[in-house]
Amino acid sequence: MAIKGERTREYIIHESYTLFAEKGFKQVTMKDVCEVTGMSRGGLYSHFSGTDKLFEAVLEKITEENSIDFQREIEKGICAVEILEKALKCMEEEMRHPEESLSIALYEYAETVNSDVMKRLNGNAQDRWNKLIQYGIERGEFMEVNVDEIVNVILYSYQGVRMWSRILSMKPKTIRSITNNIRKQLIGEQK
Amino acid sequence: MAIKGERTREYIIHESYTLFAEKGFKQVTMKDVCEVTGMSRGGLYSHFSGTDKLFEAVLEKITEENSIDFQREIEKGICAVEILEKALKCMEEEMRHPEESLSIALYEYAETVNSDVMKRLNGNAQDRWNKLIQYGIERGEFMEVNVDEIVNVILYSYQGVRMWSRILSMKPKTIRSITNNIRKQLIGEQK
Repeated sequence: MAIKGERTREYIIHESYTLFAEKGFKQVTMKDVCEVTGMSRGGLYSHFSGTDKLFEAVLEKITEENSIDFQREIEKGICAVEILEKALKCMEEEMRHPEESLSIALYEYAETVNSDVMKRLNGNAQDRWNKLIQYGIERGEFMEVNVDEIVNVILYSYQGVRMWSRILSMKPKTIRSITNNIRKQLIGEQK
Repeated sequence: MAIKGERTREYIIHESYTLFAEKGFKQVTMKDVCEVTGMSRGGLYSHFSGTDKLFEAVLEKITEENSIDFQREIEKGICAVEILEKALKCMEEEMRHPEESLSIALYEYAETVNSDVMKRLNGNAQDRWNKLIQYGIERGEFMEVNVDEIVNVILYSYQGVRMWSRILSMKPKTIRSITNNIRKQLIGEQK
């Protein structure tokens, strides 16, 4: 029974992701979620008390799924360059899909709901990248960069592209220019 | 009479800027603009046929006002480093004012209105930076960077910060880390 409940929860999160990406946060109602999931009002509310909790669950889910677990890879002793390449590929893949961007929903959520979720998720992303870059420097694979500085450039240029890919059509070349620049700053011209 | 008309137009643009920054594009009506400007419906419509044209005028205006005229500075033979420092200072200043960010309005405008204004303005920004960096390289003041690449990093990391400064409170240190990284990539470690 617990497993079934968990599955239903995952299903709701999955279906509502598309809704938030398409419509933002403010325009999505619990009724919309009932419609796309085919669930009853009671059924839905037994899992989520409102679109705020649902959106937070979506954020937790994508953060968990999309982001490579740097810490685990580091503990396994995998090359920093290898982890980086995987992470950049993953970033490129995400930037190539404006229709999946939650930028506007994130903005509207932050505007509407008073919570520290955004701060926490942002802090996590910063920590993850920080650790990877530190690890690469320690292993002598990355150059002696200013870690905090480059982490901000990585995160905000990524966010800028994700937002603007909904405004303008973004060329694959533009997307690659961001990841190439990060690569160059960390491991130099080679590759 | 023409001058008075021009002045009124400027006044409308100025007042509605704040409105768009605060409420986005979709939620601003011509009635709102009448209210903040104290103008009659007829008076307002004699200048702008709708919020789309008004928003476009706001964009043209801020692009013209906020951006340093690189071309003119270049023609004057001013040092590339000097122009760069001025531009970075200007960027920092803008990033420090989330309340003046039009990110969300830009997004909503692009979603609602079918026009090539965004593409043109983005292209202009790219051209300006391209010229400055090319100029700096030719004069031997900047390093031999990949111009298109770094221009994208400049523009999108700026946009990422402007968007996210409305979601999270942005530390001055974070803002400076973006401009420091650009400076470092163009002129190296020495400040």
